[in-house]
Amino acid sequence: MSGEPANREPVDLAAKLASFGEHWSPRVVAGFNGHDVMVVKVQGEFVWHSHPETDDFFFVLKGRLTIRMREGDVTLLPGQLFVVPKGVEHCPVAEEETHLLLIEPAGTPNTGDPATAATKHAI
Amino acid sequence: MSGEPANREPVDLAAKLASFGEHWSPRVVAGFNGHDVMVVKVQGEFVWHSHPETDDFFFVLKGRLTIRMREGDVTLLPGQLFVVPKGVEHCPVAEEETHLLLIEPAGTPNTGDPATAATKHAI
Repeated sequence: MSGEPANREPVDLAAKLASFGEHWSPRVVAGFNGHDVMVVKVQGEFVWHSHPETDDFFFVLKGRLTIRMREGDVTLLPGQLFVVPKGVEHCPVAEEETHLLLIEPAGTPNTGDPATAATKHAI
Repeated sequence: MSGEPANREPVDLAAKLASFGEHWSPRVVAGFNGHDVMVVKVQGEFVWHSHPETDDFFFVLKGRLTIRMREGDVTLLPGQLFVVPKGVEHCPVAEEETHLLLIEPAGTPNTGDPATAATKHAI
């Protein structure tokens, strides 16, 4: 066996989400091929931004998320996902509190700009 | 905007899963940073294998999945995920029909061996 010993605890997303309340403050729950796997609670409107070097993965666990894009919007319900291609400007909006699974390369600023990005916490 | 125009349809995992019945035959539902995002239905025992070059992402949507590893097992229920680190031997087992979200680099054989791997279909 060439890899490191596995941590053998399942990652329970509802339990992770129950451990914090802040909005737009992603929590890293696992690593995957140089990416952060994160949960986040969102409500309201984020900022328009794009990521020039990475796609942006959104999966709705609870609530309802609209991803505004210049060419049209997509609205996601629980059990639905969407990948915003790299370079595509978008603005996430949630009228009610919405819980998401996100995947981004480790270290990616969530606004596409380190100056305005939320800090990612590991939990 | 530097990226390609986004496909603005949400990817509904339950609808994708309802479109096929075969077990251990992953369907690609989206692309993300050179990875395939897939859904799969599994039941029974897979084969022991490892992926020397990639982590292996499992998220349970329905059912119950045990991932056997040489150092111990992890069992996942809906809403739980686990990343098997690259190089770690594992064998997925599901007593009942179980639905998973998987993420792997595009082209990764699901058994770690192209000779025995299932073909991935895009839907």
